[in-house]
Amino acid sequence: MTRDVPDSVISEVPAHGDASADLSRFAINQITTRSLSLKEAVETYARHGVGGIGVWTNYADEMGGAAAARVIRDAGLFVPCLCTSQWVNVTGGVALARAIEENRRRIDLAAEIGAATLVMVPGGLAAGEKDLSAARGRVEEALDALLPHARAAGVALGLEPLHPMYAAERSCLNTFAQCLDLVERLGAGTGIVADLYHCWWDPEFPAGLRKAGPERVLTFHLCDWLTPTRDVYQDRGMVGDGVIDIAFYRRLLDAIGYDGPFEIEIFSKFDWWLRDPQEVTRISIERCAPFVAPRGRAP
Amino acid sequence: MTRDVPDSVISEVPAHGDASADLSRFAINQITTRSLSLKEAVETYARHGVGGIGVWTNYADEMGGAAAARVIRDAGLFVPCLCTSQWVNVTGGVALARAIEENRRRIDLAAEIGAATLVMVPGGLAAGEKDLSAARGRVEEALDALLPHARAAGVALGLEPLHPMYAAERSCLNTFAQCLDLVERLGAGTGIVADLYHCWWDPEFPAGLRKAGPERVLTFHLCDWLTPTRDVYQDRGMVGDGVIDIAFYRRLLDAIGYDGPFEIEIFSKFDWWLRDPQEVTRISIERCAPFVAPRGRAP
Repeated sequence: MTRDVPDSVISEVPAHGDASADLSRFAINQITTRSLSLKEAVETYARHGVGGIGVWTNYADEMGGAAAARVIRDAGLFVPCLCTSQWVNVTGGVALARAIEENRRRIDLAAEIGAATLVMVPGGLAAGEKDLSAARGRVEEALDALLPHARAAGVALGLEPLHPMYAAERSCLNTFAQCLDLVERLGAGTGIVADLYHCWWDPEFPAGLRKAGPERVLTFHLCDWLTPTRDVYQDRGMVGDGVIDIAFYRRLLDAIGYDGPFEIEIFSKFDWWLRDPQEVTRISIERCAPFVAPRGRAP
Repeated sequence: MTRDVPDSVISEVPAHGDASADLSRFAINQITTRSLSLKEAVETYARHGVGGIGVWTNYADEMGGAAAARVIRDAGLFVPCLCTSQWVNVTGGVALARAIEENRRRIDLAAEIGAATLVMVPGGLAAGEKDLSAARGRVEEALDALLPHARAAGVALGLEPLHPMYAAERSCLNTFAQCLDLVERLGAGTGIVADLYHCWWDPEFPAGLRKAGPERVLTFHLCDWLTPTRDVYQDRGMVGDGVIDIAFYRRLLDAIGYDGPFEIEIFSKFDWWLRDPQEVTRISIERCAPFVAPRGRAP
């Protein structure tokens, strides 16, 4: 979780409101600046003093794992996670076997670029299927099948509770409690990727974080919920622009002893994806700085 | 829950695929045919042999409570619920007092039109507020304040878990378990309005229904979840067009001894709201008939 950026890069850091902020725990998920290539995103974030980058497989594949690893390492960024596992919206057969194989490849890619966690977004129902419980059972089996490979690679399977509005298609893992149960059953090599956007509404989210404890929260995503929300998929808000009590969660995470990464991740087709990525990076830092300080140094 | 429709009306019943279906437990929520006035909706549903109507306050207010009550009674329809309580997105003061007073009026309106339940959709955060837990606490206090009036009027306060995507604005009651906890704390005169659209994703929904038992489920709403969902508010699916395993829930409700109403409720700005309400009524009956039979007579 330490950064090692050459002085020549540091000296280029533009003003972002608080040049003294310690951003060593802070990562930007590259989807936030989706128009940038992985190389461009790495260079931009590093130039702004950001500690880490959340990487997406398609961007890493575009430049190849080895080159991606080199660029990230040279910039001194940490990689809290690789997004994401392949959706497995099939009930079995060759398609399921292929999806599991592809996920093994993604585990290897995560290991290659130094990502601590592969974010599991496993899909939901198969075509024509209505049995969400069966889909959830399949996901557990698939995770179990992947786990030896993940353990051998030293990459954690990060179960991410996704907002219930994504249950049918993107992921049938929809609450923190559900994911924590799964993590308890699956054991070592698994943990939770917690995301405020997906969990903020859940009356049991705070209790879930307390129960999980710091070692089972692999990384923590920052985002905000806009009112109104204009699109089911791509209208997430910049930190501070929505209704989520982010300071409350930062205090709670401190209280349970969490000192892992904080990662901003925004899908925003109406706003942030239309802006200059340099501006988005700068504002991401400004908005997140109060919430990402090292433990004991939060406001 | 019995119907008493004059033969002259019954004889006008158009074919709806299964003229022999017993629709005595089945209601259509009038928002499903939103272009109809309350009088038109009552006449349409009765003509099609539907047992009941879910009423909205604005439609009832338009014709006045007494006239609404007469029209509904004359048609022999039952009223599973009046929708809805007023949102209370304020932290206190005069605005809160006024909202509670308005909700007392709606309880009286429910009593006047013979609605067994006032559906509580209490709102969420106040303007600028980020403390969802505080909002939930306020809702509990407001429900407690309303309860004596509701008990005196013989109208149940129906807590409806709303989909988490509505937590900020429409309702901070978002899971069945949360509502059941509230019902247990508030006691007599309260119960749950369960809606498949809002709860289908919840891994704990089946267990919640079992725990609640038949007497605490006041009415059960039918709807379907479309993939993709194109709008956060108004893209609910006709029963059968989505991914929800409605037959599973019907079996579960039978197993716990539920024999209350089934009510279709659809918000659909892209499809069903654009169609002829007569066609919507006919198709609603066709699609719901397999799920609304009396106990012991379901398929």
